[in-house]
Amino acid sequence: MKLDHIGIAVKSIAQSRRFYEGGLKLHAFPSVEEVLGERVRVLKLDVEPGLHIELLEAMDDESPIAKFIAKRGEGLHHLCYAVDDVLLATETLKAQGFKPLWERPRNGAGGCIVNFFHPKDTFGVLTELSQLPK
Amino acid sequence: MKLDHIGIAVKSIAQSRRFYEGGLKLHAFPSVEEVLGERVRVLKLDVEPGLHIELLEAMDDESPIAKFIAKRGEGLHHLCYAVDDVLLATETLKAQGFKPLWERPRNGAGGCIVNFFHPKDTFGVLTELSQLPK
Repeated sequence: MKLDHIGIAVKSIAQSRRFYEGGLKLHAFPSVEEVLGERVRVLKLDVEPGLHIELLEAMDDESPIAKFIAKRGEGLHHLCYAVDDVLLATETLKAQGFKPLWERPRNGAGGCIVNFFHPKDTFGVLTELSQLPK
Repeated sequence: MKLDHIGIAVKSIAQSRRFYEGGLKLHAFPSVEEVLGERVRVLKLDVEPGLHIELLEAMDDESPIAKFIAKRGEGLHHLCYAVDDVLLATETLKAQGFKPLWERPRNGAGGCIVNFFHPKDTFGVLTELSQLPK
């Protein structure tokens, strides 16, 4: 279990990246990715080796990021932990009474296999588990 | 600039620690600290060397954590970066147009010297800079 990234919902990557690049001097990845399934644009910024921040911008009003911002405003959105085996890690949490969002993990961006735990079950923190590609 | 901790506002440390210890298998520090100035109880959990989660529980209704939860519910509260020189890091952000909460850094818990940047100026993320004791 290792923290992989921190997801931050923003209205505009172009605006908010100034704080992270110019202010905090974090190094941004060269390009903004589009994750079409989630209707979201993503800019990754390295915090340290193996840990990055993801600035998440909605592509349209149907995006979960648009809904999050409409309800709560911009801000910290989720934590993602890298795990060796997402099935095993999910089972461990289920055995403790925490219910994953999906019965079976799904394919995420970049070849990862992921599952989520909803904030209503985790004391307020949307939590992603991600098995990185071998 | 290194991520030092992630602060999470919770109603109850006793309840929510189950998710992090039992579920995510993070190792908790042996005791809950009380930060009287902020009216907050803190449980630290190691994520990896040099990075921890802080579960933050209000000691009374006047605590900033109580006000945060009343407004937004439990959840991700702030990010804290460790810096070598909090004055210099603050000046760097000021030069980029970001206004710190305090004109001069203040003493924080554990001998740290800290300053904050307010979410309204940072695209939604309360951001702490902390100069660790030498």
